[in-house]
Amino acid sequence: MSSINENYLLLESSYLFAEIDTRVEKYQNENPDANIIRMGIGDVTKPLPPAIIDKFKTGVDEMGQAETFRGYGPYRGYDFLIEEIINHDFTPRGIQLDKEEVFVSEGAKPDTGNIQEIFGVNNVVAITDPVYPVYVESNIMAGRGGPMGEDGKYEGLVYLPCTEENGFVPELPEKPVDLIYLCFPNNPTGTVLTKDELTKWVNYARESKAVILFDAAYEAYIQEEDIPRSIYEIEGAKEVAIEFRSFSKNAGFTGIRCAYTVVPKELVGYDSDGNPHSLNELWYRRLTTKFNGVSYPIQVAASGTYTPQGQREIKDLVDYYMKNAAIIRESLTEIGLNVYGGVNSPYIWIKTPDGIDSWDFFDLLLEKAHIVGTPGVGFGPSGEGYLRLTAFNTLENTKKAMERITRLQEEI
Amino acid sequence: MSSINENYLLLESSYLFAEIDTRVEKYQNENPDANIIRMGIGDVTKPLPPAIIDKFKTGVDEMGQAETFRGYGPYRGYDFLIEEIINHDFTPRGIQLDKEEVFVSEGAKPDTGNIQEIFGVNNVVAITDPVYPVYVESNIMAGRGGPMGEDGKYEGLVYLPCTEENGFVPELPEKPVDLIYLCFPNNPTGTVLTKDELTKWVNYARESKAVILFDAAYEAYIQEEDIPRSIYEIEGAKEVAIEFRSFSKNAGFTGIRCAYTVVPKELVGYDSDGNPHSLNELWYRRLTTKFNGVSYPIQVAASGTYTPQGQREIKDLVDYYMKNAAIIRESLTEIGLNVYGGVNSPYIWIKTPDGIDSWDFFDLLLEKAHIVGTPGVGFGPSGEGYLRLTAFNTLENTKKAMERITRLQEEI
Repeated sequence: MSSINENYLLLESSYLFAEIDTRVEKYQNENPDANIIRMGIGDVTKPLPPAIIDKFKTGVDEMGQAETFRGYGPYRGYDFLIEEIINHDFTPRGIQLDKEEVFVSEGAKPDTGNIQEIFGVNNVVAITDPVYPVYVESNIMAGRGGPMGEDGKYEGLVYLPCTEENGFVPELPEKPVDLIYLCFPNNPTGTVLTKDELTKWVNYARESKAVILFDAAYEAYIQEEDIPRSIYEIEGAKEVAIEFRSFSKNAGFTGIRCAYTVVPKELVGYDSDGNPHSLNELWYRRLTTKFNGVSYPIQVAASGTYTPQGQREIKDLVDYYMKNAAIIRESLTEIGLNVYGGVNSPYIWIKTPDGIDSWDFFDLLLEKAHIVGTPGVGFGPSGEGYLRLTAFNTLENTKKAMERITRLQEEI
Repeated sequence: MSSINENYLLLESSYLFAEIDTRVEKYQNENPDANIIRMGIGDVTKPLPPAIIDKFKTGVDEMGQAETFRGYGPYRGYDFLIEEIINHDFTPRGIQLDKEEVFVSEGAKPDTGNIQEIFGVNNVVAITDPVYPVYVESNIMAGRGGPMGEDGKYEGLVYLPCTEENGFVPELPEKPVDLIYLCFPNNPTGTVLTKDELTKWVNYARESKAVILFDAAYEAYIQEEDIPRSIYEIEGAKEVAIEFRSFSKNAGFTGIRCAYTVVPKELVGYDSDGNPHSLNELWYRRLTTKFNGVSYPIQVAASGTYTPQGQREIKDLVDYYMKNAAIIRESLTEIGLNVYGGVNSPYIWIKTPDGIDSWDFFDLLLEKAHIVGTPGVGFGPSGEGYLRLTAFNTLENTKKAMERITRLQEEI
């Protein structure tokens, strides 16, 4: 008799965005004339720029010709893309990477979800709170979380609160932890860590032989010069950190699917006898069994982001969204709301007014302003009392949404 | 201190195809003039046909226009593709599927590797022997296999030998099993099951509440009318089977990446209290956490296989490879070798002559005929004494290879 993975039964029944969809659909059905503006999900809206489209089609054409057709690609990705990644994203910031340390994948979500597989089930996992749900759920599924307590926290996980009180800077854990998920610029709060703050974490991991899983999917949105764009800018980080990057948010690849993960060769995990093992080799071993490389035309398309034209065009995309972010920040600040993020990130994290809870504020914005946000509590208990808006809508809709909220001011 | 998943240490150190590459590279370096013909890996060589290329580029163009741009796609895949899948691959064979039972993915390898995640770690897993290594390795990684014994078998797995003696038809297991991997047309043996033989397995699974994981990646190569193309042609199979399909081998998508998996709604697994749970829901739950859909242009390209032109063109591809298969079969039979498969499959399974072992025969073919095959033992202990050739090379190379082997006849 087949038995299921009962850890799945520990997961909350509905995924956050599914619950949002349900509420929005219900409201739209009851109010068919409401012109709803979606500022909830972190999905881009601008089309792919010409430099990428052109490259993409070149790659497709090659697959239609006998001389240039390619079957299974290399597990790690094609050298032509990996070289561009290293030369553009790391070398200029003083980071030396070997080609075998970069793994091209079909998304940062699968990578951040799958990385825990190479670690033992007994690792103590620390997450910032609020947090991108994938880190939590993938560990619950693997048996590292246990049941959820009444406080909304899985008993086996270590929560690192990030709130107004500590300026959204997680404090080092009080009990020892083995795996630490950090995402900066942060999803959902939109806040960042300075070099000094990130150094504190790298040093902690080096001392405790922990591994940092550093999600840098929003790196392209960093505007301030002193904010680290890669954890490897911190001395010693290659000994303790895996870094996740994506083409989704800088180049609009959410519907195309391409990302990459850096696993340095000096990075190790330990067996039960205390012997070190290369995590780069373990990750590669996983890929040879469960992966067959990223689509060739997509890798060609991704390489288009590194041409001079591509670099200009993706900067324009980021600038467009960051203009929206500034409009949101300013409009909400003006009406007296406390807002965070939106400076080095496309996410704006709003403290709900008058202490109302996240879902009530969500419903208020939906019903009174026809705006869809994401309730902060959906990202973890410390997100209660906050709501996330994203800068990924059009400029026109963003302005319209802010006008609506400003008109609402008297009611809230 | 981070600890690794020690199950990885139970895996054999080198993946089969990596060992082959090493030997071939060494030989080529020592013999730079040798014109080596690769008939080892199951990778296609013919370019994508025009109907698919045209659709693919249409999909790419849509991503470059604001009106048609698409971000994150549906987890299960786009309806336009799922409807074509159901209408072409199932309805004509009397199989009714709901759209929510089809999950479009980036490959049958990831799907067959990942499906075990939704099952508990204590399921007893049965595999045919020889077998596609992914089924074994993904279960070892998850802790269902235990260490490998001196007989080359992982202690926790149940091996179902498929050899000349039983006509490559696996017999029902002697001890109860919970998960059963079946792949027909088979990789590596190229053999098939009749409807009666497959019915025996469906009935076994129904009686024992086991789940069959049915890999039909080579379905397009079936030439004989009475061979089931889908396990759902067998009565009651929707209660017990998950089916994996791919665009890799019928349409040349190995470097493009698209496949799909069918998880019927009536299919259940059990929790430790004996309560049934929908496997369709569990698989969907996994996808929402670890997956973000298949690239939109690729799904458009895949839909191109279902147009009248696309159907003709992919039939031509399959016919081309099957002509190679016939040439291999006939040439080898003529020189007195016992060969199997190659009738409903692109794989030809050769009994090594004079009882020499798989790797010796591999080396013999490499050194004397400059042909790369795959040693049967690489697919499991019952593959010892066999070698796999594939029909995926060009017609010209296939003919040349067979001429070389025929000349070798006197030596073997």
